[in-house]
Amino acid sequence: GDVEKGKAKSATCAACHGANGISMIPDYPNLAGQKEKYLISQLKAFRSGDRKNPVMAPMAAGLSDEDIANLAAYYASLNPAG
Amino acid sequence: GDVEKGKAKSATCAACHGANGISMIPDYPNLAGQKEKYLISQLKAFRSGDRKNPVMAPMAAGLSDEDIANLAAYYASLNPAG
Repeated sequence: GDVEKGKAKSATCAACHGANGISMIPDYPNLAGQKEKYLISQLKAFRSGDRKNPVMAPMAAGLSDEDIANLAAYYASLNPAG
Repeated sequence: GDVEKGKAKSATCAACHGANGISMIPDYPNLAGQKEKYLISQLKAFRSGDRKNPVMAPMAAGLSDEDIANLAAYYASLNPAG
């Protein structure tokens, strides 16, 4: 995926997952430095409903496969220590 | 949770999630430095089947609430950069 495009797409995500991918909210996971392939599979699972989450369902609903690849590349590229 | 007890319990987890909580396998998430509360909710979801995963279901099936609290404390305590 494209990191820059992923960053541009991540504005909504940052509200919960943090501008640097380290969440401010204990219930929400850090995404910085996470495995790209894992991020892709989870976003697709939220989009399809294979993984059920009332907050993430509407977030993922509007994402294309390309958006998902870009967001995953972006978050995987972030420093895991924030 | 108790970090030391969590570490003792984590031998099986380390096979996929890495001895330092950084996974060697692109499909499996890093756990090092992840949010404790998030780790607890996900392990409980795997145990109850709320979150479906054929690999994690048997892993979580045998865990008590105390095991889950300890494992979450342990992985949350690890350096996110590995």
